[in-house]
Amino acid sequence: MTVKTMSFQVLTERYNQFVLITDRVERAVAESGVKDGMVTVLSMHTTTGIAVNESLECLESDLEQFLARLVPEDRPYAHARMLKDYGSTAGNPTGHLKSHITGNHCHFFIENGKMVRGGAQDIYFCEFDGPSQRTIRVQIVG
Amino acid sequence: MTVKTMSFQVLTERYNQFVLITDRVERAVAESGVKDGMVTVLSMHTTTGIAVNESLECLESDLEQFLARLVPEDRPYAHARMLKDYGSTAGNPTGHLKSHITGNHCHFFIENGKMVRGGAQDIYFCEFDGPSQRTIRVQIVG
Amino acid sequence: MTVKTMSFQVLTERYNQFVLITDRVERAVAESGVKDGMVTVLSMHTTTGIAVNESLECLESDLEQFLARLVPEDRPYAHARMLKDYGSTAGNPTGHLKSHITGNHCHFFIENGKMVRGGAQDIYFCEFDGPSQRTIRVQIVG
Repeated sequence: MTVKTMSFQVLTERYNQFVLITDRVERAVAESGVKDGMVTVLSMHTTTGIAVNESLECLESDLEQFLARLVPEDRPYAHARMLKDYGSTAGNPTGHLKSHITGNHCHFFIENGKMVRGGAQDIYFCEFDGPSQRTIRVQIVG
Repeated sequence: MTVKTMSFQVLTERYNQFVLITDRVERAVAESGVKDGMVTVLSMHTTTGIAVNESLECLESDLEQFLARLVPEDRPYAHARMLKDYGSTAGNPTGHLKSHITGNHCHFFIENGKMVRGGAQDIYFCEFDGPSQRTIRVQIVG
Repeated sequence: MTVKTMSFQVLTERYNQFVLITDRVERAVAESGVKDGMVTVLSMHTTTGIAVNESLECLESDLEQFLARLVPEDRPYAHARMLKDYGSTAGNPTGHLKSHITGNHCHFFIENGKMVRGGAQDIYFCEFDGPSQRTIRVQIVG
């Protein structure tokens, strides 16, 4: 059994942003040398998400507006207040809530050394509190 | 370490439909011969979901109405427009959004050759853009 | 390859409650002796969830109010009716719907014998139909 774990960084540029990371995950799978197994992609943050969806700009904007409608910025959240541990006002309650309904990981199977995706499936890193430098960890087991 | 990967098809009949697939996953686990490990069930599509919930018709209709309320059909989505790559109008933005909040996979542990489920837990394939022929992949590791 | 599966109980005290279980999962990882691999945490119920988020009381109340807003108690759900199999009225449709959008599992990677979490990441068991005694299963593979 082989277990390979690595990480990479994403530098986001907007408050909410969908960043394609399929290529980086596929490269990690290829470099692992694993022939049959599974890859797991995990965000290390709590105001971000990992999602599998079709890669289309119109869908990215639909998703962004959908999440903004479910989790509006202008509600009276408890997390939008002074936090002693932070020494500042917490300002990202919406990011945490969007993360809750998005999820923080995905999986794909590896067969004959290739990550098997459906025809429309791409992997998105979802930023809900950017701009920021983010860490994504990838584990390949096989 | 054993890695067994297989797939099966589901033919859905309605635009939105919840299809029980527990039996097919349990059969795959039994046929794998794995005694201790994990099974992962993964949809190969982006307008579908995999969910674990109680198998009751009243719950299926509650879920369908709940998702239709969160993601109404009559909003002005960007994805509902002419797409050059498709050569046609994309008409399934709601399926992609329902998929985003549902998730596309589930796991169960295998102990003594059996898939261990809670008393009320069944596995649903969730169709959000049917009718269609869909592919579900299953991997058993142990 | 090592596969260790165990379970623990959580006794919830409120109808909706977020219970931190990070310590119990970390203890299971330490006791497994696995150096490199993955831990999976799985709820055995259908009116609960497993979520990764920051451990802050203000966030717990924001999450609780957010889910109550998406899934209000006072709607006419089909599952809120007499069920012959139960011999009583089903009264927890909201718990099943909150579970659907929360998800029922999480993963963390194990490196050098430690569960690697991001700085703000904690594991919550989410009760959506308490008070109740709940079972959580944990599998460590490496």
